[in-house]
Amino acid sequence: MPKLDICFSPELLPLYDLRGQVAVIVDILRASSTIVTALGEGVTHVFPVASLEECTAYGQQHGCLTAAERDGLPAPGFDLGNSPFGFLDAMRPVRGRALTISTTNGTAALRRSLAAAEVVVGSFLNLAAVANFAREQQRDVLVVCAGWKGRFCLEDTVFGGALAERLSADFDVRSSDATLAALHLWEQGKADLPAYLLQSAHVRRLNSLEASKDFEFCLRVDSYANVLPVWREDRLVMA
Amino acid sequence: MPKLDICFSPELLPLYDLRGQVAVIVDILRASSTIVTALGEGVTHVFPVASLEECTAYGQQHGCLTAAERDGLPAPGFDLGNSPFGFLDAMRPVRGRALTISTTNGTAALRRSLAAAEVVVGSFLNLAAVANFAREQQRDVLVVCAGWKGRFCLEDTVFGGALAERLSADFDVRSSDATLAALHLWEQGKADLPAYLLQSAHVRRLNSLEASKDFEFCLRVDSYANVLPVWREDRLVMA
Repeated sequence: MPKLDICFSPELLPLYDLRGQVAVIVDILRASSTIVTALGEGVTHVFPVASLEECTAYGQQHGCLTAAERDGLPAPGFDLGNSPFGFLDAMRPVRGRALTISTTNGTAALRRSLAAAEVVVGSFLNLAAVANFAREQQRDVLVVCAGWKGRFCLEDTVFGGALAERLSADFDVRSSDATLAALHLWEQGKADLPAYLLQSAHVRRLNSLEASKDFEFCLRVDSYANVLPVWREDRLVMA
Repeated sequence: MPKLDICFSPELLPLYDLRGQVAVIVDILRASSTIVTALGEGVTHVFPVASLEECTAYGQQHGCLTAAERDGLPAPGFDLGNSPFGFLDAMRPVRGRALTISTTNGTAALRRSLAAAEVVVGSFLNLAAVANFAREQQRDVLVVCAGWKGRFCLEDTVFGGALAERLSADFDVRSSDATLAALHLWEQGKADLPAYLLQSAHVRRLNSLEASKDFEFCLRVDSYANVLPVWREDRLVMA
């Protein structure tokens, strides 16, 4: 039976051997949720980059949409911020366009996970797609939490618990203390996920920036149940 | 109000600035519990070392008792293993003796925390002593979980939650997601701590080595309520 483990911070990735595994990159607030939304709304592919400079450069080089934020607000000079609602604006259709998105924590997590056999992006929005892919692959899975500046982050962890619950019949979810803890936290919070995560320091930071609409959107389980961003060469595309 | 934060692995310590803080080193199974027991039973001071070779060398140099284990069993050629019961044997009194103890995870956590203003050793056995010391110091506290080979470990985390609960009136225990998660896990497990921790992968490893007597002992909250090992120069002594 394959194993599901959870890495709470990209800083801990050197302790894991990703070869042959599926890496699920998670940055619930908001990079992974926004990438899922973008592909779900018809964006053809996504280049995740760390810095604003790279974002500008990719935008020019590939003629694609650019999305960037700093300190929770849209960065000036880019087409979009990091809010998923940027991809739901009827006035600015995104279908058929490529995207480059600047996300510090998420890009770091993704780049450090490329030794894996498959790298996919997970969020509550596409939980079912991630679970189905894991079952098909029949490989060990490592959930890589982007965290916040390398530190443990509640919402990414709780996603790991939700995935572990979905996979508990097909995967060993009991042999790692990280997975056990994530399962416990998910079980505590799932009845009212927004209320549970509103305690989180990170969420409160986001909230104070009036991004609570994003917060609620990012917790809608399976609203893009068939959208699975997978890493191919240098970009994320639909599986 | 000072802050209580929890670092889930020594590998994450570079993310924290320990200067001016109190570091609480935790390795519930079993190094920190054993060190508390040793001092509680009259051992004068403890030299924690990483390797068996250092343990032998310190033992010869300082003429002290030596304690070491490998893979959960007492290592051959040393006076004691890492079981707290080694210090409760009427046939081999330890009062007035010094001790050197080999503990890989615990020593790594301690040595990486020496930038702190105060370094103390925490366990369920001396939870009250740690909480009292923290209140007296009125400094920010970082609980440093020794973890298991650098990874997240349930029993050390749950201790962090227990300490956060004790200090919740005097410390900010809500501004770190790690502390919030530890509090939640402690709240879930505290009614029957042995049953809760028996799920843990690490505990099951220990259990399979017939060390369940140690396990139960290490969870006895406040059985050494006045014993606080503090780091002074090159050793742990009673506060």
